[in-house]
Amino acid sequence: MTVKMTAEELMEFLDGEFPQVNGEFAIEEVGDSRIRVRLLVAERHLRPGGTVSGPSIFALADVSVYLAVLAMIGPQGLAVTTSCSLDFMRKPAARTDLIAECRLLKLGRVLAVGEVLVFSDGMQAPVARASLTYSIPPK
Amino acid sequence: MTVKMTAEELMEFLDGEFPQVNGEFAIEEVGDSRIRVRLLVAERHLRPGGTVSGPSIFALADVSVYLAVLAMIGPQGLAVTTSCSLDFMRKPAARTDLIAECRLLKLGRVLAVGEVLVFSDGMQAPVARASLTYSIPPK
Amino acid sequence: MTVKMTAEELMEFLDGEFPQVNGEFAIEEVGDSRIRVRLLVAERHLRPGGTVSGPSIFALADVSVYLAVLAMIGPQGLAVTTSCSLDFMRKPAARTDLIAECRLLKLGRVLAVGEVLVFSDGMQAPVARASLTYSIPPK
Amino acid sequence: MTVKMTAEELMEFLDGEFPQVNGEFAIEEVGDSRIRVRLLVAERHLRPGGTVSGPSIFALADVSVYLAVLAMIGPQGLAVTTSCSLDFMRKPAARTDLIAECRLLKLGRVLAVGEVLVFSDGMQAPVARASLTYSIPPK
Repeated sequence: MTVKMTAEELMEFLDGEFPQVNGEFAIEEVGDSRIRVRLLVAERHLRPGGTVSGPSIFALADVSVYLAVLAMIGPQGLAVTTSCSLDFMRKPAARTDLIAECRLLKLGRVLAVGEVLVFSDGMQAPVARASLTYSIPPK
Repeated sequence: MTVKMTAEELMEFLDGEFPQVNGEFAIEEVGDSRIRVRLLVAERHLRPGGTVSGPSIFALADVSVYLAVLAMIGPQGLAVTTSCSLDFMRKPAARTDLIAECRLLKLGRVLAVGEVLVFSDGMQAPVARASLTYSIPPK
Repeated sequence: MTVKMTAEELMEFLDGEFPQVNGEFAIEEVGDSRIRVRLLVAERHLRPGGTVSGPSIFALADVSVYLAVLAMIGPQGLAVTTSCSLDFMRKPAARTDLIAECRLLKLGRVLAVGEVLVFSDGMQAPVARASLTYSIPPK
Repeated sequence: MTVKMTAEELMEFLDGEFPQVNGEFAIEEVGDSRIRVRLLVAERHLRPGGTVSGPSIFALADVSVYLAVLAMIGPQGLAVTTSCSLDFMRKPAARTDLIAECRLLKLGRVLAVGEVLVFSDGMQAPVARASLTYSIPPK
């Protein structure tokens, strides 16, 4: 399939629709049904010891699938998460950005499914895995 | 089983261990393997239209099971989330606190499992459901 | 909401649509957005030691949500499972029927969500919990 | 890490421990933290129209992670599934074997996490994805 939005267009759309997350995420790479997204870790993402919080990991996985879907269907603000499963497997490295490697496994008419591996930047073993389902509204 | 910590003791422990979430949560009621927790919704939890964000719902479900476990085993900071499944079922009411009704289904030697229903305060139909597994470290 | 099918009508429909599972399940009780279903445990459901297999527990949870949806929307064969999350919490009692207590948390136009607790017949502590999402086809 | 059991040793162990599933599965390939397993589809796995049933897909995903864990830790019968998340994404091809591509994401002291993509033999797009957690008993 053809990618309908570039990384720049996706970031612009995200910033416009969700000003609350401005500056939290950066798109590293977009491809056919794939995206790599960085969580720019700041103080508000941390727990004691400098570890990145669970909600921040969820947020990164969630936005990654959202952006992967948008990249394929174009700028439609209304896709919503309907379900998510997460496994937290390792403690993130302290005060280190997280990288989400996301792949769309299904992009249907009404449902999209994406899977995500989350890494501490520079590490080989994943911190977490996630799978998310998005509901795509009728046009 | 006997509840080992009161709502006040739980909040004090949470504030001490996780100063980052100070003022976000309030415990409404603690019982045997049950807890009710309120997310005190503020600007930072919101998305456009005043709806409460997914990461905030995750955070509420996660802290609820954590507190339910602590209430039963006593103040041990090291229990960690190992997995989570979430279903987002309805749009939360705008700018309204969320209430988590949490029940522990298992409290084993190494794993605890809790389930959570999340409501917009005053609403009957749940916004989300979650189930979480915590790993309990050996003493 | 009104229940549109009785236990007898549901069993008849199930037997007609899925002859492969004839004799595996019995409906104990149907109510508004609730159902209780029994797995009639036979040799083929067992693992060594007489414990009921994981796939049998999945099958019971899955059919319970399916029947709970049908009870509310009427006999439509085409609802399909889109996702499932399961926690296996305790070993089932040997050679004992399983009972699923199922509740629909959402019955939308396109998606239904049900949660299930599975018990060994006569036991208090649940063997497993499950949540399932069904996709309901347009009429 | 070193693989401790060959495909033949794994099948022999499985047949000895779980005679109930004799002839259902075949191991196609074993590697470091990876395994490919075939469900030899027979009449009992089917639903009307020849589609493979949900419980059969669950069973394949479950046994694949079990075998992937055993391959790495050696023949220990006692690892048990503690949780599972499944997304059913496409209808399986009629009367066609299923292939599970499984990867271990974590092999810890007490918990292992595996992810699985399930394909109808010869198809490119996955029928389902699964992630499973196994609890590994202390030696």
